Amino acid sequence: MSEISELTSADKEFLQQYLPPPRPEDTLKERRRGLPFVTLTYASSLDGMISLAPGLRTNLSGPETKSMTHYLRLHHEAILVGVGTAIPDDPGLNSRYPGATLEKQPQPVIIDPNRRWNVGDSKVLKLAQQEQGHTPWIITAKTARISPPTTEEVNGQNFELRPLIGRTRVAASGDGETMPVEWLDWVDILKHIKRMGINSVMIEGGATIISTLLSLPHLVHSVIVTVAPTWLGEGGVAVSPAQKREEGERVNAARLEETAWRQFGADAVLCGRLLQE
Amino acid sequence: MSEISELTSADKEFLQQYLPPPRPEDTLKERRRGLPFVTLTYASSLDGMISLAPGLRTNLSGPETKSMTHYLRLHHEAILVGVGTAIPDDPGLNSRYPGATLEKQPQPVIIDPNRRWNVGDSKVLKLAQQEQGHTPWIITAKTARISPPTTEEVNGQNFELRPLIGRTRVAASGDGETMPVEWLDWVDILKHIKRMGINSVMIEGGATIISTLLSLPHLVHSVIVTVAPTWLGEGGVAVSPAQKREEGERVNAARLEETAWRQFGADAVLCGRLLQE
Ligand SMILES: NC(=O)c1ccc[n+]([C@@H]2O[C@H](COP(=O)([O-])OP(=O)(O)OC[C@H]3O[C@@H](n4cnc5c(N)ncnc54)[C@H](OP(=O)(O)O)[C@@H]3O)[C@@H](O)[C@H]2O)c1
Ligand SMILES: NC(=O)c1ccc[n+]([C@@H]2O[C@H](COP(=O)([O-])OP(=O)(O)OC[C@H]3O[C@@H](n4cnc5c(N)ncnc54)[C@H](OP(=O)(O)O)[C@@H]3O)[C@@H](O)[C@H]2O)c1
Repeated sequence: MSEISELTSADKEFLQQYLPPPRPEDTLKERRRGLPFVTLTYASSLDGMISLAPGLRTNLSGPETKSMTHYLRLHHEAILVGVGTAIPDDPGLNSRYPGATLEKQPQPVIIDPNRRWNVGDSKVLKLAQQEQGHTPWIITAKTARISPPTTEEVNGQNFELRPLIGRTRVAASGDGETMPVEWLDWVDILKHIKRMGINSVMIEGGATIISTLLSLPHLVHSVIVTVAPTWLGEGGVAVSPAQKREEGERVNAARLEETAWRQFGADAVLCGRLLQE
Repeated sequence: MSEISELTSADKEFLQQYLPPPRPEDTLKERRRGLPFVTLTYASSLDGMISLAPGLRTNLSGPETKSMTHYLRLHHEAILVGVGTAIPDDPGLNSRYPGATLEKQPQPVIIDPNRRWNVGDSKVLKLAQQEQGHTPWIITAKTARISPPTTEEVNGQNFELRPLIGRTRVAASGDGETMPVEWLDWVDILKHIKRMGINSVMIEGGATIISTLLSLPHLVHSVIVTVAPTWLGEGGVAVSPAQKREEGERVNAARLEETAWRQFGADAVLCGRLLQE
């Protein structure tokens, strides 16, 4: 496991204005209103990819940006990933930044509409047993098989299922057949999370989730991308939003403003805010 | 036409070690040996794309990195692009950096094996008529229709065809049919250019040429990539080398070492050298 070290004060200053505001000292009712602060963050190759192949864990960023990720996690109340990341990567979703106490650990949230993830074997659950993180919340679709129970016991520990009403979309599978999939609206997901008392969420992947949210700029407050000086090559998993047209012409699908770049080891970190339109 | 301004001395210092070495004071025979110094340079979106769609000129980088491009052009003896860039972009391929004289202008070189480019209407030829650049060299395949003549006259000006022996490969066209294409070996192209007295060449695109050369690290001395804080979206033209495997496993297709990053306006510029393996 790579060493997580303190960031320099210059590094912290660079990140400062892109972090969620300090927890508001307001009432519970106040805190439950609206939407959480959303930070999108991922590590990309120069060819815009986040892994070599679907389901293949790929180490992209160096030790310096890893420390940054753990620093950022400590500054958000929740970390969210999709089931397409939870299954192959088995991420810890906690912070190993120096001084991280259980109380300060972010809440892990997994979007798993069809309950495909085997939580019992997961690192997240192991870390929770060791009091190094919280038991995960799993956002499922109400129509998914496991509904209606909202907690499940695994290895003597309860973790929470947070069912949301999904919509059924038809998607094409690899072999050209179509199948119904549960699709959740991002406004619903984020409101759901906010209602549980979460004021800020760091969304770490994977490709489907990041690509979708890049096209929903009104839901995203900060974007922090680590760019590693490598090309993964054709056939990797790319983060790229759906194409966009204005008056029939193709235009850039998303843009950042208020950008700041900083070199962290061999990588660069880009912070910015999505241009609202 | 956007203003090209002097770089700051800090910007120049940042680029310094990635520039070709000063012109050697050696004999013509010496200079004609081997291969030229090769710099790959392009501007990319965060999703690794260089244009919104094939043949659609896309402005990616801001004014600060444009000045850098014109500075770099003045430090190379030739600029090279493919016909897939020459036709839709109609690039000037000269330097507008302050103090650029005709003598210091780089030699434009276009890789056009099948002589598809209509040089008569080109900006390159217009600039040459105005003594703001040189008449282009066109590298064609010997088997291409126009062979054997090696100069052509257009609008009273001669430009040079530099035929090379190509190989015939079979490629699939969009509609699934296959057709023979002229393919030139990069060692042959670069030796050919070196034999004409060119010691350094800046290769500016497009996607096919950059992607190919990223997989030939022994031919490339410097890589300078501008990353713009935007996503072009699915269906754009991506720079991504062919996938690479080691012992059956997918590995990164290319990597940079000795990297340095610097923010130029809203963009970042990454300099590095391709890892040799
Ligand atoms: N470099 C990095 O920073 C980084 C970070 C994270 C992940 N990754 C990589 O990314 C890859 C995974 O990407 P991915 O796109 O396959 O997975 P993903 O985005 O993590 O998860 C996608 C899945 O989540 C569910 N989902 C997402 N959005 C949904 C919505 N709005 N409504 C309902 N369900 C939704 C769907 O599950 P169903 O399939 O059940 O419908 C969907 O297939 C992995 O290779 C991983 O290594 C890289
Ligand atoms: N953002 C940037 O920095 C930047 C810079 C330059 C270009 N671009 C964009 O890139 C796109 C063009 O990319 P592209 O891939 O289509 O074009 P390209 O790389 O400029 O040219 C490709 C063509 O050049 C010929 N060619 C290349 N390598 C060859 C070889 N080894 N042997 C023989 N022929 C070779 C082939 O011509 P034939 O087809 O005749 O066989 C091939 O189709 C355009 O949209 C342009 O705007 C962006």
